[in-house]
Amino acid sequence: MKNFSDYIGLFTDHYEFTMAQGYFLDGRKDTKACFDYFFRKNPFKSGYVIFAGLQDFLEMLSEFKFNDESIAHLKRVGFNNDFLDYLSEFKFNGTIHSVKEGEVVFNNEPVIIVEGNIIETQLIESLLLNMINFQSLIATKASRIRYTAGERLVMDFGLRRAQALSAIHASRAAIIGGLDSTSNVYSAYRYDLLSSGTLAHSWIQSYGDELTAFRKYAAAFPQNCVLLVDTYNTLKSGLPNAVKVAKEMERKGERLRAIRLDSGDLAYLSKEARKILDQANLRYVKIVASNQLNEHLIKSLIDQKAPIDAFGVGTNLITGQNDAALDGVYKLATIDERPTLKISENIEKITLPGTKRLYRFYNGENKFYADGILLEDENEIDEIYHAIDQYKFANIKGLKKEDLLVEVFEKGEIKKKKESVYEISQYAKQRLELLPEEHKRFENPHIYKVGISKKLFNLKAEIIKDLKK
Amino acid sequence: MKNFSDYIGLFTDHYEFTMAQGYFLDGRKDTKACFDYFFRKNPFKSGYVIFAGLQDFLEMLSEFKFNDESIAHLKRVGFNNDFLDYLSEFKFNGTIHSVKEGEVVFNNEPVIIVEGNIIETQLIESLLLNMINFQSLIATKASRIRYTAGERLVMDFGLRRAQALSAIHASRAAIIGGLDSTSNVYSAYRYDLLSSGTLAHSWIQSYGDELTAFRKYAAAFPQNCVLLVDTYNTLKSGLPNAVKVAKEMERKGERLRAIRLDSGDLAYLSKEARKILDQANLRYVKIVASNQLNEHLIKSLIDQKAPIDAFGVGTNLITGQNDAALDGVYKLATIDERPTLKISENIEKITLPGTKRLYRFYNGENKFYADGILLEDENEIDEIYHAIDQYKFANIKGLKKEDLLVEVFEKGEIKKKKESVYEISQYAKQRLELLPEEHKRFENPHIYKVGISKKLFNLKAEIIKDLKK
Repeated sequence: MKNFSDYIGLFTDHYEFTMAQGYFLDGRKDTKACFDYFFRKNPFKSGYVIFAGLQDFLEMLSEFKFNDESIAHLKRVGFNNDFLDYLSEFKFNGTIHSVKEGEVVFNNEPVIIVEGNIIETQLIESLLLNMINFQSLIATKASRIRYTAGERLVMDFGLRRAQALSAIHASRAAIIGGLDSTSNVYSAYRYDLLSSGTLAHSWIQSYGDELTAFRKYAAAFPQNCVLLVDTYNTLKSGLPNAVKVAKEMERKGERLRAIRLDSGDLAYLSKEARKILDQANLRYVKIVASNQLNEHLIKSLIDQKAPIDAFGVGTNLITGQNDAALDGVYKLATIDERPTLKISENIEKITLPGTKRLYRFYNGENKFYADGILLEDENEIDEIYHAIDQYKFANIKGLKKEDLLVEVFEKGEIKKKKESVYEISQYAKQRLELLPEEHKRFENPHIYKVGISKKLFNLKAEIIKDLKK
Repeated sequence: MKNFSDYIGLFTDHYEFTMAQGYFLDGRKDTKACFDYFFRKNPFKSGYVIFAGLQDFLEMLSEFKFNDESIAHLKRVGFNNDFLDYLSEFKFNGTIHSVKEGEVVFNNEPVIIVEGNIIETQLIESLLLNMINFQSLIATKASRIRYTAGERLVMDFGLRRAQALSAIHASRAAIIGGLDSTSNVYSAYRYDLLSSGTLAHSWIQSYGDELTAFRKYAAAFPQNCVLLVDTYNTLKSGLPNAVKVAKEMERKGERLRAIRLDSGDLAYLSKEARKILDQANLRYVKIVASNQLNEHLIKSLIDQKAPIDAFGVGTNLITGQNDAALDGVYKLATIDERPTLKISENIEKITLPGTKRLYRFYNGENKFYADGILLEDENEIDEIYHAIDQYKFANIKGLKKEDLLVEVFEKGEIKKKKESVYEISQYAKQRLELLPEEHKRFENPHIYKVGISKKLFNLKAEIIKDLKK
């Protein structure tokens, strides 16, 4: 991993270089292009996605260059010398409009629009997809977990099961989606996140007997003592020993903070643990639970009234199980100032032509009602149409509207001010509060309306007709 | 990503530091410990796992240190000054035995054994799990894909859907598991892999008409021309235009290398495409297929006799769908020269105590027959026992055996010679040839025998009895 940031230009699919060289040698290096980023499907059967990864993408884009070693590598692979001379001076000088990081977004709407010459807009495709797809996936997963966990503490424990270095960005995205802290100390350092963690079974094992291990831990961390009670037998050994240590701590004026359950039936064990703690007058001792949790298991525990105060989530969060990828794509919408689209035998996969804008419309309760995709020269419209079915439309006349796409990169520079990860998280939380409840439920969430202007509808129809000839 | 390699020590779960500080302040910094790495379940319903990630793990381990900024961060978080002084000098000085990278391994056997003092062995847990779990997962997925694809070319196209920087190591692991090349140019540069790629739909769209786009591509890459034929209509437009261009190339003494199908029914379209190409006397033109492929879809295509010569695999490979994590764990086996184990109410989760060795036994056909886990002071044994059921055993007396664990790290130094990724891949391939076919099939693969020595069985029973008191 020696200075990965010096080689970011190479973090690209081979075919981007092939196409870029083709365009270059064909004398098209100044041909203008506009690409849309959007995803086709909300993951996890969620009714929405939390958009994340923007700041990292933009920072990496600022460093998207080709040093001498990168150029030498591409030369060995067989790329053309004139093209490589061009690449050695390469810098992305285009313009990027994007929704804000932390925004609540939906499938099939352009959430990033990239404009520039065909070479620069093509070359950055892989990086954009890689960074935005993943962080948006994990922020959305975290958001679903936060939704079920309510105000309870939720911690990311995923580093060990993360897909290698994905953990660096996953822990950041998890906080954006609503988690409180991470076990990943590197990400905490890099992104100024809260990190947390106490002890593993190995600590208990290393002292042989549980009571000694608990006492040693309490002595080492009297302010933040969480005892893992399931190493031998949760109810017969772990809890009684934890109670004993808690009482010893009380005599020193200290308080046991929590016990942690990491195996067995968490609903049953947490109820029994609560009873034991309460009977010992240890009402202030919290219960933390972990072990292959996801949003559905947390919901089930809460539905069962399990008295759990905090959850640790690992594998299912950090890898986005069972949808390990967001299916974001990057499609050419305008070339040489001519709108274009990609047709498909699957009518839903036909893309939207032209350089576009994205507006959000509010309902009478001042909540999100619908999103509308317009052509860039449009402003006021009265209806938005279903992208395929022209008989389906929604009246949005006079509704309060919001321009969702803001300029975030221009002439090689990041234009947006950098926010802290917790600020982005706060923004996501505020925005989610504006999304009506029916779009947030787990079972068949109501589909949020995303429509297009009549003008865009007609433009699309015309281009398809032309292409079919 | 500024110099991630300078901060590798922080790429660690918070609780490793908490425990390390606890051990340090309790005066146990020289207490000896031994941890086992193993996984509980083979992913993808596979009968085996391809072990991968070792070289990267060992290199990162060599750089697992704490620079001034890391120490300052840990100080801000609240760690103890004396402990931080110790950390600022930290270097892993323990010993690691491991199976070879590319080895065929099985669940519930120790494939890495880490020995050293309790602090150093504990601190490296997260890094080891992160790197080995993921690369082994992806190498195994790639191996399953290679198994169905036979001798056909298989290319990794996953970068855009990879879990962020996981792509760096995933593309490496994919080659170890048997893929031929990757689209990821950075990994190709870093690990000396073959990279490949041609053009996207945007190339075709950018020229407006398909025939012009094909001609331009053929002119730019006459030696390696692969035409994507599904932008408009595969059979009515893409194929006829590809044939036209192939014929034009022939007149210049060039040859169209392949056409690529990226949507629609790949079985039907590949058969029709083959017919059209053959009728045009273009038998040499290959057919490449991609679009959400995995090992099962590839098998189905081959079962249908789809005449596809090469496959591109993306999302399903690079994220290990539908098992996005290998469940590897790191368990304390010996402390202060005393064997220990972690008990569990789930009998299968009880770990194996003591410092161990791992042997492979061969059957009469010189194929893998069984693996045996022995205590380190054992050598010749006649039977291996099921880890739980003492009435289940296998006779291995006199069978040819192989010591699978080799010393790979000692006193802060990597001991093994670095091999190329393709060499590791070749080793994996040779080893898989020694695994009987019944363990490789997709449907209910025969479970490979992994047993323990009678002495280990008895030691485990004794310790459990002691703990239950």
